[in-house]
Amino acid sequence: MSTAREAVEAYWLAAEERDWAGFAALVAADVLYEALQSRERVRSRDAYVRFNSEGFPGGWHQTVERIVAADREAVSLIRMRYPDGSEQPGLSIFDIGGDGLITRITDFWPDAYEPPASRAGLVERYE
Amino acid sequence: MSTAREAVEAYWLAAEERDWAGFAALVAADVLYEALQSRERVRSRDAYVRFNSEGFPGGWHQTVERIVAADREAVSLIRMRYPDGSEQPGLSIFDIGGDGLITRITDFWPDAYEPPASRAGLVERYE
Repeated sequence: MSTAREAVEAYWLAAEERDWAGFAALVAADVLYEALQSRERVRSRDAYVRFNSEGFPGGWHQTVERIVAADREAVSLIRMRYPDGSEQPGLSIFDIGGDGLITRITDFWPDAYEPPASRAGLVERYE
Repeated sequence: MSTAREAVEAYWLAAEERDWAGFAALVAADVLYEALQSRERVRSRDAYVRFNSEGFPGGWHQTVERIVAADREAVSLIRMRYPDGSEQPGLSIFDIGGDGLITRITDFWPDAYEPPASRAGLVERYE
């Protein structure tokens, strides 16, 4: 049994290495994935491995910037880097079962945006 | 001294109630706010209270959907509801000082999007 933090670290390492057998071994047979922004849902280990291994253009790399971990749940903040040089943060909420396997993943891919002029006097901008 | 979870619960309650004095009492004098998507930054309690009380159109309400809390850090997932009926998830990462005050907030406002057709066979869509 691993901790929530260890499970999430192993998950992102397996994804980065395209180690799909290792990735599969980290998630429960009935794992549930949801992307709230796109209303996408994937159920079961086999479908989830396919979604990750086949559902995205190749050549991406990610680095884990932060993990906030409790006992049976954790949130990761990653930075995805695409082959065209663009980057995007990704946030994922993980639920972990008593056996240490990941039972649920809910993730978010927030895009960059320009803030409204109405609050320009209330903030700094940074690079 | 409160726990990270209690601090985050109190923060969202004060914001929802527009209790800006109560809100101010929850954050450190040198609190740092960053919105990575818009590269906005706000420093100090006074500036951060102004940003929240003056920087957004009125009439919003939020409900806290989930808090993942560790000892000195937490992540909240909220649902914002705007007067026009639209809704948006918001994710906020909180750091908590030894005195229980919030020292740093990093938040994300992910917009809805349509997924690429290339992975249509790998996912379900839901309402």
